[in-house]
Amino acid sequence: MNTSLDLLASMLPEDVDAALIISNENRRYFTQFVSSLGYLLLTREEAYLLVDFRYAEAAGANAKGCVVVPLKKLSEDMGRIITKHNIRSVMLEGSAFTLNDAAETDAILSEYGAKSIHSDELDKLITKLRITKTSTEVDKIIKAQRITEQALTETLRLVREGVTEKEIALELEYKMRRLGADGVSFDLIVIAGEKTSMPHGTPGNNKIKPGDFITFDIGALYEGYHSDMTRTYALGYVSDKQKRVYDTVYRAQKMGLDAVKGGVVCKEVDKIVRDFIYQAGFEGCFGHSTGHGVGLEIHEQPVLSQISDTILQSGMVVTVEPGIYIPGEFGVRIEDMAVVTADGCMSLAVLPKELIIL
Amino acid sequence: MNTSLDLLASMLPEDVDAALIISNENRRYFTQFVSSLGYLLLTREEAYLLVDFRYAEAAGANAKGCVVVPLKKLSEDMGRIITKHNIRSVMLEGSAFTLNDAAETDAILSEYGAKSIHSDELDKLITKLRITKTSTEVDKIIKAQRITEQALTETLRLVREGVTEKEIALELEYKMRRLGADGVSFDLIVIAGEKTSMPHGTPGNNKIKPGDFITFDIGALYEGYHSDMTRTYALGYVSDKQKRVYDTVYRAQKMGLDAVKGGVVCKEVDKIVRDFIYQAGFEGCFGHSTGHGVGLEIHEQPVLSQISDTILQSGMVVTVEPGIYIPGEFGVRIEDMAVVTADGCMSLAVLPKELIIL
Repeated sequence: MNTSLDLLASMLPEDVDAALIISNENRRYFTQFVSSLGYLLLTREEAYLLVDFRYAEAAGANAKGCVVVPLKKLSEDMGRIITKHNIRSVMLEGSAFTLNDAAETDAILSEYGAKSIHSDELDKLITKLRITKTSTEVDKIIKAQRITEQALTETLRLVREGVTEKEIALELEYKMRRLGADGVSFDLIVIAGEKTSMPHGTPGNNKIKPGDFITFDIGALYEGYHSDMTRTYALGYVSDKQKRVYDTVYRAQKMGLDAVKGGVVCKEVDKIVRDFIYQAGFEGCFGHSTGHGVGLEIHEQPVLSQISDTILQSGMVVTVEPGIYIPGEFGVRIEDMAVVTADGCMSLAVLPKELIIL
Repeated sequence: MNTSLDLLASMLPEDVDAALIISNENRRYFTQFVSSLGYLLLTREEAYLLVDFRYAEAAGANAKGCVVVPLKKLSEDMGRIITKHNIRSVMLEGSAFTLNDAAETDAILSEYGAKSIHSDELDKLITKLRITKTSTEVDKIIKAQRITEQALTETLRLVREGVTEKEIALELEYKMRRLGADGVSFDLIVIAGEKTSMPHGTPGNNKIKPGDFITFDIGALYEGYHSDMTRTYALGYVSDKQKRVYDTVYRAQKMGLDAVKGGVVCKEVDKIVRDFIYQAGFEGCFGHSTGHGVGLEIHEQPVLSQISDTILQSGMVVTVEPGIYIPGEFGVRIEDMAVVTADGCMSLAVLPKELIIL
């Protein structure tokens, strides 16, 4: 087994003999092998990756720390492992098994004298491992971020009066892919004008016009890892109110980054940012959390929310993304990812955050 | 309630008071409303769509046949409905609820004196409805197909020696999106040369060269509906063996389409196609099923497989996609979607299927 599999095996509760993992992200995390279907069965002595004929050969060559079992008949392939290791209880990945998946697995386990445990306990153990990133993981997140910034820089040249949100979003995605992204981290948010007052608007056919804010909340996917950044630009000119809101978000975001440090409680970072925005006169205009973890999933632990007691640790990657949203008028959000260190954090974004009028 | 919700309510087993649906596809199917999160709680008297603040306003205006409940606190919002309709048992959508989702829901139901039913029975009832398509659904599938064919036609101009599979796949996706697709139906398959012997290869950086077959297995997404088609082209020239294999697949695919008709058993269609390919000397070179249903998901019921006893009915949309794959050499697949009618079927593809040498 490799380190992450060893660690997880050592974390299993005493009365549990094995863990069964089926989500694509977690199979990939523990074995470094990418597939769209498969079972990772972790016993205390050995880990087994069961994959079908499409993946068996490549998994044999590339999967790390596990014995690859080409799936012929799931019940028999799994049954042999259960018998060999004398497994009596198997924790299922509660966030990934559907009720139908679980019913199928339970029938197999019971045939071989084992029972399954339905809970979120395995998810919690895995989160403990995934919540901090290795340098290899951070490198992939940085690469995804560089692609995003390069694509955004090239796309900004196309932003002018009359272009639609959808056209810009499509060009941006196309450029990311041309630059080597495997895809986008999420449906890209490119919204303009009044729509910027919605934190999660979707690109439409409305045309950009002078005086608009344009919000880009975007990210690329690179070797399984996500990136996430937001920039808000203006076209042509801005009003005093727009300037004041932008400046408030800009300063709040800087304060947030300044507050991120190993040992700090997540909700304290949120409080610093939130208090500043509220005291600047924008209470009720910042409805979401200050940030979230990023990794193999776009939203991971920890969450920089008003209620999170999680303590930041070196190696976590979190976003800091305050915003102010004024219904019927406009909104501004600025977001960077940062790696937590013992004495602060390192922002992963290099594009400027000062107000840019295109 | 609208027709599909009424129908589902009338299909619930006698001892079941309600059904709880959480998959995006099924919420959309029954309410015509698109959201990435929500609960559709169907009682015998009324259907309720519970969605959060992001969707509440739009759902109120657009969701069909249901009462929209803006989610504040899930347990209380759901509890009120359970109490009002005196619900004692709720069937969960077993293919969509994870173990963790189900645990959360069970706790709420139990608080209000109801219990949940964990099974795949609700999925089976819904499949009975979704397996045949309305004309509105078929229209969307046709629109997705037209976009795919237009994009493919435009992209074929770029296919020449030295271009990579990935470049072609990216251009194709870009053109689909420009033509109005919401996205792709699946990761587009554009593979060339020896890789065409893998039914599910992924586009890589290898360059196309004369003598290659190039397989396009592609589809666009339009208003939630998928399309699926495969064409195999050659670059420059083909060998006699390539010609013979192509001709065999071409004739097999035509036979398959000719066999599709209301009242016919799925496995009979598969048998006609398979027997022809095997008797032409290619036994062991056609490992997958002959076809599958297409709709809100890219793979739906029915399946044209060797073991499916499902009887084809008017209004089903199925693919017919035989292939011959010769390891280490090349492969050919040709695929159309077709709508089943009482006396045959109507193919939804218009692009020619004769061998084209680019």
